[in-house]
Amino acid sequence: MELKPVKNVTFVEGGVCAAKGFRANGIQCGLAHAGATVTAKKNDLALIVADTECTAAAVYTTNKVKGAPILVTKEHLKNGRARAVIVNSVNANTCNADGVEKANMMCELAAKELGIDPEDVIVASTGVIGQVLPIEPIANGMKSLAEGLTYDGNPRALEAIMTTDTRKKEIAVQFEMGGKTCTMGGMLKGSGMIHPNMATTLTFITTDAAISEELVQRALSDVVKVTLNRASVDGDTSTNDMVCVMASGSAGNKPVTKEDEEFEKFQNALYAIMMNLARMMARDGEGATKLIECAVSGAETEKIAETVAKSVICSSLFKAMIFGQDANAGRIYCAIGYSDADFDINKVDVDMASEAGRIALGRKGCLVEFSEEEAAKILKEEVIEVIISLGNGPGSAVAWGCDLTYDYVKINGDYRS
Amino acid sequence: MELKPVKNVTFVEGGVCAAKGFRANGIQCGLAHAGATVTAKKNDLALIVADTECTAAAVYTTNKVKGAPILVTKEHLKNGRARAVIVNSVNANTCNADGVEKANMMCELAAKELGIDPEDVIVASTGVIGQVLPIEPIANGMKSLAEGLTYDGNPRALEAIMTTDTRKKEIAVQFEMGGKTCTMGGMLKGSGMIHPNMATTLTFITTDAAISEELVQRALSDVVKVTLNRASVDGDTSTNDMVCVMASGSAGNKPVTKEDEEFEKFQNALYAIMMNLARMMARDGEGATKLIECAVSGAETEKIAETVAKSVICSSLFKAMIFGQDANAGRIYCAIGYSDADFDINKVDVDMASEAGRIALGRKGCLVEFSEEEAAKILKEEVIEVIISLGNGPGSAVAWGCDLTYDYVKINGDYRS
Repeated sequence: MELKPVKNVTFVEGGVCAAKGFRANGIQCGLAHAGATVTAKKNDLALIVADTECTAAAVYTTNKVKGAPILVTKEHLKNGRARAVIVNSVNANTCNADGVEKANMMCELAAKELGIDPEDVIVASTGVIGQVLPIEPIANGMKSLAEGLTYDGNPRALEAIMTTDTRKKEIAVQFEMGGKTCTMGGMLKGSGMIHPNMATTLTFITTDAAISEELVQRALSDVVKVTLNRASVDGDTSTNDMVCVMASGSAGNKPVTKEDEEFEKFQNALYAIMMNLARMMARDGEGATKLIECAVSGAETEKIAETVAKSVICSSLFKAMIFGQDANAGRIYCAIGYSDADFDINKVDVDMASEAGRIALGRKGCLVEFSEEEAAKILKEEVIEVIISLGNGPGSAVAWGCDLTYDYVKINGDYRS
Repeated sequence: MELKPVKNVTFVEGGVCAAKGFRANGIQCGLAHAGATVTAKKNDLALIVADTECTAAAVYTTNKVKGAPILVTKEHLKNGRARAVIVNSVNANTCNADGVEKANMMCELAAKELGIDPEDVIVASTGVIGQVLPIEPIANGMKSLAEGLTYDGNPRALEAIMTTDTRKKEIAVQFEMGGKTCTMGGMLKGSGMIHPNMATTLTFITTDAAISEELVQRALSDVVKVTLNRASVDGDTSTNDMVCVMASGSAGNKPVTKEDEEFEKFQNALYAIMMNLARMMARDGEGATKLIECAVSGAETEKIAETVAKSVICSSLFKAMIFGQDANAGRIYCAIGYSDADFDINKVDVDMASEAGRIALGRKGCLVEFSEEEAAKILKEEVIEVIISLGNGPGSAVAWGCDLTYDYVKINGDYRS
């Protein structure tokens, strides 16, 4: 699957180390969890560190059950500044009585090794819910984790945040701000698991652009709404979701301090990063064989377009049909119809497309005849687009999902049986 | 799976023919659909007829895409009276330009044969969306359908409304009203398909109790909220859902005309019917191997309890875990946490139970240790209960769902591949 281009940005290599002055590392510290017979044979602890203090922002899961690391990170980002991220996989440190204590210890251990303030550390965890987090492997590994930090350490860190992810999800872009070339890079994990307990999304983004605390948060809060918040694998909102951005300012651009043209450039780069990470996440959804992109236009409002698009990509019947490569257009109308949004169903047109072509499935609320052969060709591709027009206004939105497959059931149901 | 007892009612045989004065029949009229190579080898057209005019009420899908039969039935039930139900499977008569015309023709054909007013006929269809309904097989079959009506015709009618249902879902009860023995019976189809296009629920209920048009509607509208509307197989709200009740008054009880004790008895019987049909429907969900019953108590309001219970039974991760017979309690907390309801997660207790026993999974928002062996025993049973206490008030609710299995994906994705 190719990256989707965005105007005014160029894709580059390097992930979270692409921007100037960011080092990363990942090691296997040996976190095991109850019920596991062997320690995970992959990196399980990562560190991302900026050479200088950054403005930083994060957005978090809306789940009322929040991982302990989220509570600690929220506290640490109150001042809008950070230097480092410490993150482990295998264990989510969630629903544990001593969770906050352990999350704080992770920050202290990292800060001590780096010679920085623990409050400048962002902490995250992903893995099994409700198992006490053993702190010893983390404490024992911290020295070598810090010593191994390099300006090309992105691959080692990326491995450490993966669980059953089957694809590496990283991206970096270059763009111009205030006459300077800025770089921004990110990595994402999701939606996989070591044990079938949760499917978290963690996203870490670094940039050398200069931007104020307030505006980096505003940019992130805006962009997450139209990217990651419009992607769904199975409708289960995890307890540990977190996206954070650290902006070091090393690119030398005049810091962005108001919502001007420069801010728009920053947002545009962030959109390029997060939109593509959202697509990669959906494509790598548990058991998925296809990425589904549902574009809704002609809505009275953007919110209505979003609601309809999400309703389609979340429909189990629709998702199973995409897996089966079956053009059951009635299911798409069904999912449009039960979405909680206001529109006239008798004006709704539906098309289906992919690299192999585009066909009309319905017009004005009624199905139309189409070539099953052409539909089959379209459905063979890896990226399937559903294009819906509500015929009622200027609002539009895109949402990303994946198909529902035997492997989703296998990964989540059959693992221990 | 056994029927769940309800106080003051006795289970009897006979389905929609159990109540005095109701005849039924079902035939194979030969509806085929585009893409099918053979006509369905089962009954596909049913008729249910009352000897006398009934007060009648219905509730319908909230999907904006509504099957044409729903539009026609709504019109016909405006006066709150009906004599007959005509219903076909195989073809949903939905998203068709001539749908309303065809649905009206079905009523006219049935009415002519029965010598009644077409406006006294309730019409319903279930099957593939967006295929033109061929009226000829229905027209040709109507005479023999009407001639074959008998007071024990329930099984033939029941077969005609089934699609890929694997179990017959019918029930009847007797209860006392105003010193008379009344009978009420029902049948339900769902959630299966002939072609993988939709999963509709149709429910037909007959009774010889006497009750006014207004109150039979009120009883149905109230009871559907706490029964069928709390059951989910895959979250896809069909375009053709309909539940209707016909009350003939032949039992001779003084007609119920106000919300008194007699009305409560009627509602109680209707609850016994619809609650058990809801359980049967969830148990027979596509590919399901288990019924899941989620009981939430201690909520500030009933609405909050309902929201939490539905969130759990709709979680794909939770459903797959029940299929895998894996006690991943963190997933239950995760689904409770992302439900759109107000409560304090730190007060939430979770137990799991079945005929094999009951264990605690979590207390006050944290997971507790439990015996994996005991959990495995509980999860082997056919009916799994999840018992949640929010520790915050008097509100309670029960919701019904089923597990997510390979067969769900097979039925909905792999049928034509």
